[in-house]
Amino acid sequence: MSASVGIVGFRGYSGAEAARILARHPHCEPVLLEHRADGGDEAKLLRKSGIRRAPASADSVKAEGLKAVLFATPPEVSMDLAQKFLDAGAVVVDLSGAFRLGTAERYKQWYKEEHTAAGLLGEAVYSIPEFHRAAARGARLISNPGCYPTAANLAIRPLVEAGVIDRKCGIVCDAKSGVSGAGRKASLKTSFCEVTENFSAYSMLNHRHVPEVLMTSGVEESEFSFTAQLIPIDRGILETIYFRPAMPMSAAEILEVYDKRYHDEPFVRLYQAGHVPDLRAVQRTNFCDIGVAADAATGRVVVVSAIDNLVKGAAGQAIQNMNLALGYEETAGLL
Amino acid sequence: MSASVGIVGFRGYSGAEAARILARHPHCEPVLLEHRADGGDEAKLLRKSGIRRAPASADSVKAEGLKAVLFATPPEVSMDLAQKFLDAGAVVVDLSGAFRLGTAERYKQWYKEEHTAAGLLGEAVYSIPEFHRAAARGARLISNPGCYPTAANLAIRPLVEAGVIDRKCGIVCDAKSGVSGAGRKASLKTSFCEVTENFSAYSMLNHRHVPEVLMTSGVEESEFSFTAQLIPIDRGILETIYFRPAMPMSAAEILEVYDKRYHDEPFVRLYQAGHVPDLRAVQRTNFCDIGVAADAATGRVVVVSAIDNLVKGAAGQAIQNMNLALGYEETAGLL
Amino acid sequence: MSASVGIVGFRGYSGAEAARILARHPHCEPVLLEHRADGGDEAKLLRKSGIRRAPASADSVKAEGLKAVLFATPPEVSMDLAQKFLDAGAVVVDLSGAFRLGTAERYKQWYKEEHTAAGLLGEAVYSIPEFHRAAARGARLISNPGCYPTAANLAIRPLVEAGVIDRKCGIVCDAKSGVSGAGRKASLKTSFCEVTENFSAYSMLNHRHVPEVLMTSGVEESEFSFTAQLIPIDRGILETIYFRPAMPMSAAEILEVYDKRYHDEPFVRLYQAGHVPDLRAVQRTNFCDIGVAADAATGRVVVVSAIDNLVKGAAGQAIQNMNLALGYEETAGLL
Amino acid sequence: MSASVGIVGFRGYSGAEAARILARHPHCEPVLLEHRADGGDEAKLLRKSGIRRAPASADSVKAEGLKAVLFATPPEVSMDLAQKFLDAGAVVVDLSGAFRLGTAERYKQWYKEEHTAAGLLGEAVYSIPEFHRAAARGARLISNPGCYPTAANLAIRPLVEAGVIDRKCGIVCDAKSGVSGAGRKASLKTSFCEVTENFSAYSMLNHRHVPEVLMTSGVEESEFSFTAQLIPIDRGILETIYFRPAMPMSAAEILEVYDKRYHDEPFVRLYQAGHVPDLRAVQRTNFCDIGVAADAATGRVVVVSAIDNLVKGAAGQAIQNMNLALGYEETAGLL
Repeated sequence: MSASVGIVGFRGYSGAEAARILARHPHCEPVLLEHRADGGDEAKLLRKSGIRRAPASADSVKAEGLKAVLFATPPEVSMDLAQKFLDAGAVVVDLSGAFRLGTAERYKQWYKEEHTAAGLLGEAVYSIPEFHRAAARGARLISNPGCYPTAANLAIRPLVEAGVIDRKCGIVCDAKSGVSGAGRKASLKTSFCEVTENFSAYSMLNHRHVPEVLMTSGVEESEFSFTAQLIPIDRGILETIYFRPAMPMSAAEILEVYDKRYHDEPFVRLYQAGHVPDLRAVQRTNFCDIGVAADAATGRVVVVSAIDNLVKGAAGQAIQNMNLALGYEETAGLL
Repeated sequence: MSASVGIVGFRGYSGAEAARILARHPHCEPVLLEHRADGGDEAKLLRKSGIRRAPASADSVKAEGLKAVLFATPPEVSMDLAQKFLDAGAVVVDLSGAFRLGTAERYKQWYKEEHTAAGLLGEAVYSIPEFHRAAARGARLISNPGCYPTAANLAIRPLVEAGVIDRKCGIVCDAKSGVSGAGRKASLKTSFCEVTENFSAYSMLNHRHVPEVLMTSGVEESEFSFTAQLIPIDRGILETIYFRPAMPMSAAEILEVYDKRYHDEPFVRLYQAGHVPDLRAVQRTNFCDIGVAADAATGRVVVVSAIDNLVKGAAGQAIQNMNLALGYEETAGLL
Repeated sequence: MSASVGIVGFRGYSGAEAARILARHPHCEPVLLEHRADGGDEAKLLRKSGIRRAPASADSVKAEGLKAVLFATPPEVSMDLAQKFLDAGAVVVDLSGAFRLGTAERYKQWYKEEHTAAGLLGEAVYSIPEFHRAAARGARLISNPGCYPTAANLAIRPLVEAGVIDRKCGIVCDAKSGVSGAGRKASLKTSFCEVTENFSAYSMLNHRHVPEVLMTSGVEESEFSFTAQLIPIDRGILETIYFRPAMPMSAAEILEVYDKRYHDEPFVRLYQAGHVPDLRAVQRTNFCDIGVAADAATGRVVVVSAIDNLVKGAAGQAIQNMNLALGYEETAGLL
Repeated sequence: MSASVGIVGFRGYSGAEAARILARHPHCEPVLLEHRADGGDEAKLLRKSGIRRAPASADSVKAEGLKAVLFATPPEVSMDLAQKFLDAGAVVVDLSGAFRLGTAERYKQWYKEEHTAAGLLGEAVYSIPEFHRAAARGARLISNPGCYPTAANLAIRPLVEAGVIDRKCGIVCDAKSGVSGAGRKASLKTSFCEVTENFSAYSMLNHRHVPEVLMTSGVEESEFSFTAQLIPIDRGILETIYFRPAMPMSAAEILEVYDKRYHDEPFVRLYQAGHVPDLRAVQRTNFCDIGVAADAATGRVVVVSAIDNLVKGAAGQAIQNMNLALGYEETAGLL
């Protein structure tokens, strides 16, 4: 029998992706939770699809028998609803930034608002499963990582752990994202005519996802230069990462570090030395693809890390985390 | 009376752009020089446009009274034709890589072919006018710079000259280009379905434009990490450049270095501290736009340099150089 | 000496295009008229461009010596300002729908609002110059046509006049437009992720531009099936028009009808029989390109008409009309 | 136990889509059949995927135990291989045009080549399952329909059968397709810079898919005006179909005709009166979505029919047909 899993924010891009994944999940089926702020398209089909709907209230947890609820919502909605849904007995996976930074102070510093559910910060488990799998197993409240930090940490943390990087020269992370990363909303900046045939940097050195990279990878802020840029595409994040190695290393040697760390990981794929992924390779998948180019003689290294921002960067990783929390096989619905 | 200027390769993207610019140049008019390899679209208009055509031969220089000829051609065509057109009395501006690297050895190293017009390498003037204006004035043979090096050198050289950059930590140049940079041709890699909604790196650390950056900026190869990436757009190059300053400097202080150097330059525009250009700002113009973000406390600096690869990166700069060679005002036809 | 021409709505796509055209007009220079509703980007360039600015008030007409003002504004702004600017002595060219339909009743029927400047409807000259040139010469108030009707009428009216079309089977006009036709604004429907890789019909049989087609071409509503569809591109309108000829006619014979009508027109270009324009041919030009395919045996005819919606469909045609009103050569600034 | 299904042409867009669908088919698994003409990308992943590969020869049918083979190949390859694979015992579903037109004469007329497997034309079952389900059940050789005819016939045939259309005024089918319809190959016409921000008609009245529409719908060539146009997107076909009804009918009445015909069809979805599908609704699905707008007073009707050209227009419908031929439930792997 399928377990019911609610989605708040199913009209956004991440929420819609979560509904698509859950619709073919072997153990779950989605329930779309209507939130007052949602607005709502008029249904245009003559006959309706059979996906269940219910109000986005804690009462729905019992009425619909929800084992888990995914919050694909702005942080203020997540902070408002999380405790109520937990009390009603659901596992909560929050895709917003509400519980990512660990303390109310850091939240205020980067999100420019007061944290209104600080009591939950201690319980929330921040989980990139490749690093935090043990903590996510059986957790009640999971904070799903941001899209940029997922791609960055999967590329950087194994190298930091292995001491590969000459930290005093810093790490450059030149990140490019499709427009769906900005969410589904009316905005002049993300309107078609402003974006098509254009390319622009929108966050220089100070993106709110930076602290997530630092916390997970162990890199210092002064060592990490990050730029977020907008590609005229729908979905995908590609990060081009530059550093100098602490000792001369070839691309193959750096790949060995990754391969050791990720050998048994189902969702991290490595490329042969000198080859790097493009976005096509990861779109609509839960994979993070990593490739390395290097010149041992001059000590220049480039790592490319690519994910789909809506899947491994949002809904896919959320369901990977949910699988861990509910005790399903981690890859269920995701391959 | 208008001077006639020939264009070999007018069916390519750079050549077509040159024809458009010359058509509204106050002192020149274009003559399209048909080359045997050109193929040629069937003309579909019921009535033809009035643009003159002639064969791409040295005889046309006299027959058409050509004062200058622009070569928007592969290097092997440029090497084949340059001497003949010079002998016939035309100023030649070559947009290919044939005469950019100064020696036949370097040409062979980077272009993987023998140089077949090495006798002209001594005479050819490589000219980014902002740096090489004096040499371009009155020159007979000008080697027009590559698109990537134009954007890179305009951003990097003033900082190298002023000693702003901590060279031991290196300079990262993360470059993104529209697809027209690959030229007008049938190719699976640049076919629509492979490029749309995608983003890919196609040259890691070893692009043939790298030596042009090093030669003009004075940076060493071991200091310079360059990646060329493909944006799913028609035209434009944006380079995101990272370095650590030799001493703590704010964005405003770095901008002062640029402003001193470029104060009177008609085609370099600077942005206020913390602001950077997007491609829309420079498309279909001969401008190079430069912006700076920096954090003096941590010593992280990002410079963004943007041009239109077909204008300032090719046909526009070629006509800027031609204006210098023929003695016209440098901005003629370009504002 | 250049005549000053004001632009209200210069931050919209049509208004910005008008400013670009006027900046290289041989007899005029643009003055940007700031309107309270405009909002306004922060200027990011370190040094400002030299384009003049003034408030969007009738006082500016005298203060700035404006001979003409272009209204690239919503109809309610045009209705509010037109009389004031006329009284101050400027020629007004209105790009909105305010004065296109001739009567307040029709305006209300199609624009769903009361007309608030009905007193000007009698004076306003609706002008596609190819048809209404005489009336536009010396006019004080010109109503610039809509983008769809411009492309449709240039294709349909000569055929109606010549009796070519079998009207009882009707005329189908399948129209496709780039997204800039929707104006520059925040809107979910025109946001990048909703539009890219998509194609959608947004107006079936009942677009507010239909009455303009009927009024100018002499076709009856019951004879005219019109669908407006959105292409994922920035600019351009292409209309594919289908009808049955009243008598068997080849494409060449139909082209002869056009050629007779448009022989001396500088902005209408015809294609050889069986060839039709694409949007690339007309983008950033004031041309309307027309091509015909036909099968005389079976009586099936297809006409393709293409324009740039921001140029011949808006700013370019407005300046063509302004040239007529002010007594300049009609093509000034437009070739 | 899974049945093995071979794919010849798996590197093309339709073949790759077939591999994706079969990879999650409940009863089948894909085997990629390498064809000499294939060329082949170098594999870049460090570890290979587990998908089986074999030579594209009849021997592979037995060696790999292939119950069926999908030919996503040019017609000349299909004609060359079909008999051999049939003889080896596989069911063949051919996605090319080789067996669609019933006779060698019609093939030569529209494909401009001799038919080299005319002996199979009698056995081949042309199948849009919604119309030809009975014949497809248990068939050995199925000719999978073209993309344009699938969308057109699903929209037109029910109306022709019900006598809804006034045939003497004809039917207009204005068709738009994404670029993947042209196949995966190097070609200037489908290169990114030629297609992006453009829109063009490439086949006026004479597309080779037209006879398929006529044969299935019962419409005469003289009644059917068809134009094929290129949208700057990867995938999707949308056809805007215009006709006059034989008697006054509302959109709701026309929808009733469709609803009666398609009530139990799993892959045809209807829209409420006045609403029509966009391409987003059908991309990456096997659905054909149909909507109707009409004005009973004036007798103008517009029907919009949308499919994904690579799914319902190619690989998806091929697997739907394969399911019928092999006796699986028709929707297996497709919902």
